[in-house]
Amino acid sequence: MEVQQFIQEQVRLAREAARVVSCASTAQKNLVLQSLARLVREEAAKIEVANREDLAAAAQAGLPQPLLRRLAFAGDKIAARCRALEAIAALPDPVGSLDWGEVWPGGLEVYRRRVPLGVLAVIYEARPHVTINAGALALKSGNVVLLKGGAEASRTNQVIGTLWQEALAEAGLPATAIQVIATTDREAAAILLSLRGQIDLAIPRGGKSLIRLVEEQARVPILKHYEGICHMYLDETAGVELAVKLTVDSKVYMPEVCNALETLLVHTAAAGRLLPPVVQALRERGVEVRGCSQAREVFPDLVPATEEDWRTEYLDLVLAVRVVDSLAAAIEHINTYGSHHTDAIVTGSLEAAQEFQRQVDSAVVLVNASTMFNDGGELGLGAEMGISTDRLHARGPVGLRDLTTYKYVVVGRGHIMGTR
Amino acid sequence: MEVQQFIQEQVRLAREAARVVSCASTAQKNLVLQSLARLVREEAAKIEVANREDLAAAAQAGLPQPLLRRLAFAGDKIAARCRALEAIAALPDPVGSLDWGEVWPGGLEVYRRRVPLGVLAVIYEARPHVTINAGALALKSGNVVLLKGGAEASRTNQVIGTLWQEALAEAGLPATAIQVIATTDREAAAILLSLRGQIDLAIPRGGKSLIRLVEEQARVPILKHYEGICHMYLDETAGVELAVKLTVDSKVYMPEVCNALETLLVHTAAAGRLLPPVVQALRERGVEVRGCSQAREVFPDLVPATEEDWRTEYLDLVLAVRVVDSLAAAIEHINTYGSHHTDAIVTGSLEAAQEFQRQVDSAVVLVNASTMFNDGGELGLGAEMGISTDRLHARGPVGLRDLTTYKYVVVGRGHIMGTR
Repeated sequence: MEVQQFIQEQVRLAREAARVVSCASTAQKNLVLQSLARLVREEAAKIEVANREDLAAAAQAGLPQPLLRRLAFAGDKIAARCRALEAIAALPDPVGSLDWGEVWPGGLEVYRRRVPLGVLAVIYEARPHVTINAGALALKSGNVVLLKGGAEASRTNQVIGTLWQEALAEAGLPATAIQVIATTDREAAAILLSLRGQIDLAIPRGGKSLIRLVEEQARVPILKHYEGICHMYLDETAGVELAVKLTVDSKVYMPEVCNALETLLVHTAAAGRLLPPVVQALRERGVEVRGCSQAREVFPDLVPATEEDWRTEYLDLVLAVRVVDSLAAAIEHINTYGSHHTDAIVTGSLEAAQEFQRQVDSAVVLVNASTMFNDGGELGLGAEMGISTDRLHARGPVGLRDLTTYKYVVVGRGHIMGTR
Repeated sequence: MEVQQFIQEQVRLAREAARVVSCASTAQKNLVLQSLARLVREEAAKIEVANREDLAAAAQAGLPQPLLRRLAFAGDKIAARCRALEAIAALPDPVGSLDWGEVWPGGLEVYRRRVPLGVLAVIYEARPHVTINAGALALKSGNVVLLKGGAEASRTNQVIGTLWQEALAEAGLPATAIQVIATTDREAAAILLSLRGQIDLAIPRGGKSLIRLVEEQARVPILKHYEGICHMYLDETAGVELAVKLTVDSKVYMPEVCNALETLLVHTAAAGRLLPPVVQALRERGVEVRGCSQAREVFPDLVPATEEDWRTEYLDLVLAVRVVDSLAAAIEHINTYGSHHTDAIVTGSLEAAQEFQRQVDSAVVLVNASTMFNDGGELGLGAEMGISTDRLHARGPVGLRDLTTYKYVVVGRGHIMGTR
């Protein structure tokens, strides 16, 4: 009950701050981001001390290595965040921009103007860089944000939270515009997610179990993605060079990210020609290749792939290969087993490219390009809050504009319905 | 459990149909709408017989008069729906349209293309016209839809459902693309709303209690509005003629709709000048005016307005009047007591107009125009599925475009991240 009151008070303060922040000037918001970059650079040592304490406690508690790696925040990682803050400050402000407007024959003017969503809540694990990134994107888009990180990062997050308050104060904005939820009570996230009408959008960032828990608990709108089971389909007409280069880049460049390639589909008529060089190139880079029975006719030493493999997000140097009879079969496989995240075709055929684009039901559909291009920066959004595989509001990378909504503004000269 | 299986089977068929409908041509979809208009005209007598049976049973069961009025579907109401079908057929098809595109310096092409949401569920009461309207808007935007009307309209809805199946078959589209859920089991809606991942969007249409129930039960995304507590603020600089004309039109033109005026705010310096002609004009049209203490200094015979009145959606010929000290006080009142639906200012001051537009946090904000203009047709959407006071995805009138999402389409020439 005490936690309940504590969270509700923070949300109340956030809602008050939201009115101020929604009308803050672009210059004022950018000043906060620039001040934070300066403060983080000045206080990097303090952040690193807190992070070492978090890491020591987490290691003591037996957290697994990958989680410890994500929890670590020092040196280059801190410098990269400072550059990101400056990059976000340089992006155009979506608030107030018109995304549509008409003057109707009767003289009535109708505009649609972007406005902030209001109060965001970000629920995340481990990675303290979210405390900087999510705060910056929320503020730049005119929102306020409650940042609920994991208990394992609490010391690091609290230091960053203090710097946010300083940066906000320097620009004359309420310190409650960006709040790090200080409690490590396990109920805190559930309470936030229950506050319908008070939290305008909750964004979970983290592993599948966190996302699922948030989806179960949320009585407020959420934007999320579970996983990226991403495909590349090598069409009958795919050239060898392109097939090798795009498969390798999609699998190997950053195997741990959600848009990394997990399943390679190959047209049966091209399997003999394409699979040997592709599999060889992957193996040279340390990738374990698993194959369906037809793929194993070409490479008898492939690990046999099972139904389970088609549904698995490895996030590691493992790739499943399946030979398919047709473009239609490839599309069917992707729409059935995929996660509607990122899927690519390699082809020389315009017709195949168009059919693939039309029928594959994913947030990002690529032709002759690496799946790595599903990235807010690469697609023109500048920076992203995350990736959405939901269908409502925002799909794919979630940028500044996606953190806003709109209002219709109608200007008349005494226009009424009754006299017409 | 039997109902559960029945609904799940309908949803499974709908998802199958969705793949076909999402790729249907505009001509094919329009053909369905035109065929339905023809069939409804041909079978109007059959619809009217079923509707009379529904009405008789509802009267027997003691349904209140306003609900019976909404349930009635004959003559002009049927003719109006046929015209609406033809109007929706004439609207541009949002599916496949590009809403953004760039070619980046490296030659990578990035487009954002509109695609259908997928499977919609519309949960509604009484009004059988929704069975035509919602079906038409869903289909035109490339979606399939499950229509769950109230038990009181089941006979009428089933006749219309049969005509939808004929119209779909005539155009060679699956009859399961528009399904009227035939069961009157009270659990049916709850089951639909529980099917996360299978229903892409649920839209409740009806009274507050229905909307609230849907919001409580929904584990799928929903778009809704509870109520329209709409305001008009008469600024210090408002002219008498405009003030009278806009107040009367907003209150009297269609008092039963959600964008009708419910609370009139008047600047204290203008109350003596504006209130007498405004109140007189309203009273001449049968409006009961309730007032705050300051308003009652001008009109001692006004019914005293209480705190409760500021939170009430009358949907009737009743208006609450409050005198406020400033533009800021008017905005504060609207953002506190309003429902973020439709709010207007009457003013001669550009500065006041701009401040009002900026600070009032509502889906539609009007300057010197009647609140009646919050309407999909008037704002340029052609037709609407409803009005949203939610902030995510769509705000204000929900048109064809709002029933779609987008996919990013990326076309490269072997673009990879690794070599850069």
